Amino acid sequence: MLIPVQKATEIILNQTEDFGCESVPFIESLGRVLKEDIYADRDFPPFDRASMDGVAINVDSFNKGQRDFIIENIQAAGSAQLTLKNPANCIETMTGAVLPKNTNAVIQYELTETKNNTVTINTDDVQFYKNIHKQGLDCKKGSELISKNTLISAAEIGVFATVGKSFVSVAKQPKIVIISTGDELVEVNEMPKTYQIRRSNVHTLVSLLERLHIKSDTLHITDDKELLKAKIKTALNDYDVLLFSGAVSKGKFDFIPEVLDALGVEKLFHRVKQKPGKPFWFGKKDTKTIFAFPGNPVSTFVSCVKYFEPWYQKSVGLPFENKPTAILASDFEFKAPLTYFLQVKLENKNGCLYAHPVTGNGSGDLANLALADAFLELPAVRSNFAKGDVFPILTYR
Amino acid sequence: MLIPVQKATEIILNQTEDFGCESVPFIESLGRVLKEDIYADRDFPPFDRASMDGVAINVDSFNKGQRDFIIENIQAAGSAQLTLKNPANCIETMTGAVLPKNTNAVIQYELTETKNNTVTINTDDVQFYKNIHKQGLDCKKGSELISKNTLISAAEIGVFATVGKSFVSVAKQPKIVIISTGDELVEVNEMPKTYQIRRSNVHTLVSLLERLHIKSDTLHITDDKELLKAKIKTALNDYDVLLFSGAVSKGKFDFIPEVLDALGVEKLFHRVKQKPGKPFWFGKKDTKTIFAFPGNPVSTFVSCVKYFEPWYQKSVGLPFENKPTAILASDFEFKAPLTYFLQVKLENKNGCLYAHPVTGNGSGDLANLALADAFLELPAVRSNFAKGDVFPILTYR
Repeated sequence: MLIPVQKATEIILNQTEDFGCESVPFIESLGRVLKEDIYADRDFPPFDRASMDGVAINVDSFNKGQRDFIIENIQAAGSAQLTLKNPANCIETMTGAVLPKNTNAVIQYELTETKNNTVTINTDDVQFYKNIHKQGLDCKKGSELISKNTLISAAEIGVFATVGKSFVSVAKQPKIVIISTGDELVEVNEMPKTYQIRRSNVHTLVSLLERLHIKSDTLHITDDKELLKAKIKTALNDYDVLLFSGAVSKGKFDFIPEVLDALGVEKLFHRVKQKPGKPFWFGKKDTKTIFAFPGNPVSTFVSCVKYFEPWYQKSVGLPFENKPTAILASDFEFKAPLTYFLQVKLENKNGCLYAHPVTGNGSGDLANLALADAFLELPAVRSNFAKGDVFPILTYR
Repeated sequence: MLIPVQKATEIILNQTEDFGCESVPFIESLGRVLKEDIYADRDFPPFDRASMDGVAINVDSFNKGQRDFIIENIQAAGSAQLTLKNPANCIETMTGAVLPKNTNAVIQYELTETKNNTVTINTDDVQFYKNIHKQGLDCKKGSELISKNTLISAAEIGVFATVGKSFVSVAKQPKIVIISTGDELVEVNEMPKTYQIRRSNVHTLVSLLERLHIKSDTLHITDDKELLKAKIKTALNDYDVLLFSGAVSKGKFDFIPEVLDALGVEKLFHRVKQKPGKPFWFGKKDTKTIFAFPGNPVSTFVSCVKYFEPWYQKSVGLPFENKPTAILASDFEFKAPLTYFLQVKLENKNGCLYAHPVTGNGSGDLANLALADAFLELPAVRSNFAKGDVFPILTYR
């Protein structure tokens, strides 16, 4: 019995797993999911900081009409705070430096003139704290800067560095093995016989996982029931997730469902109302999660993006966000009562995403994926899809 | 003299460099730029391939009214082509298998019934080549599947595998060193004194480059002119690109422009009509390219995304594509006659991208970047920006 795509998604998202946390050097955490809240370890800025290069003065002197200030000293960034001894003088002060004691404004060089050792200020536009980034203005010591479950980008890396988090806690990645079956497959560097093809799906899956910063192992097993049983048993012990490609349909050598059953894996569904990818099988054994994708290249590809990715994202704690959508750029018809994953090329125009169908020759045509950017998810309940209609989009670039 | 953002961009894009090509194992090529055209090494499919599990028959027999077919043999995927000896018989044929000789349609099991060794076909909907993916339908041997200068995704990896490209030619990445200066900086794992801060910009830049699959080295040099001269001289020898952060403004210790000049680096511009990042300095020595970003965290960040990234993309041959845009989600005002890079959070709604301003406290506020996704580029010629207006967007996640 085929189940609808939405039901398959629900079942899968009810089967997420927590793989725990690990501490990694902050500079290696890009693309991972943060598992602790990050707080300011001091005020930011940590001191009243000059935000321009110029001269620090006491504004009271300026307000009394004084315009010429003798240079008393120079305050460099990274030097301890100096003190202005005579309020009628000034201290040259560099961007990033501490504001010298007894001063309360920095006049940028552009508005001054220096002769001998005296600076003349050529503006009347001077206020208290001009060009000073005040201590704690960006945030106060102890305030939360980044919350748990954030996907780490270069921006977060910068914050970790700033607050001294040389190690951060991130979600552990699941241990994943990608298993191909099918006696027609040969290795990439081999010359296939007429009736053979090269192994490609495992490599595609490795790359889709790499995009999620997940390292994975691969394995090929020939279509032999006993061998499959032995090797899959080991894989169930060694890995958190098994991704299969192939051998889940109605063929005489499609042993995967039977072998998984014999190994005590519970089938949660088999066959989904979708094209491509109808024979998709999903199951669970204790904490181990098994995605058995159909062997056609595009079926495997779209199933990984549509089902594995959100399962992974929910498992590691990424917050649910509105899934992206795109606008169909030309009319399209698909008659079967199945959810159709249409290959599309995306175009950003005037702030909107237009999905142009890239029509191929069915689920076997991997070359077509290289011409597209994404899949537009067309619901099973309709068969005519009009230019301008909006649908969910699954991107892979 | 400040130059406009567009002029700065033009100058930079006129200074791209070709770093050549290298051959890498295909499975390590994700995110790199392909430097050869990829052709089909055989027809795809390479043979008339069964696209369903079922029985292969001779349609002429069916058309004569025959519905019961004795099973003569079984054609597995990965086995050499069998021959149907008696046209009144059938051969069980698996998805992915070669269509047996003397047959010309596969009837899926779902539409048949098998008793003893005889299959009864329960449908009248049988045509020549039903459920057969014909040889060469996806593409003919020798046809181009992927063209040079494509950014490699999982889809391309799958095609490389399929056509047996175990090594592919990709653009070499530039050798890049990221240099920080500024005596106020301490390492991430150190406890800064009151007037010090931790080194963060180099780490942010490392991560922004990592997103482009570029590995980089980092270096810190204290604010000492002779030391700077010696170390930068070595860096100019060892690397293709130098990225600086800091010491390019008007401060007494902002030695970078002077030192670069002394080393024979030609200044192509200094200071851009933008906020943040006004003191940005750009220069060239022979084939070496020098981006000297201002030291404020957000200035460095946005300048890398705005200037380094397109320079890199053009250098490695990525085709110019329309830059993405987004829709301003609320009115915004910025009065100075400078291009303003507004920090925004993106929302995808009805196929369109809405940019919600994340207002911070100026260029020093790195923590704010962690709350945003992108910069919206607001042109210098205006000061009022209305909800609904469309502007270029620079993303970093």
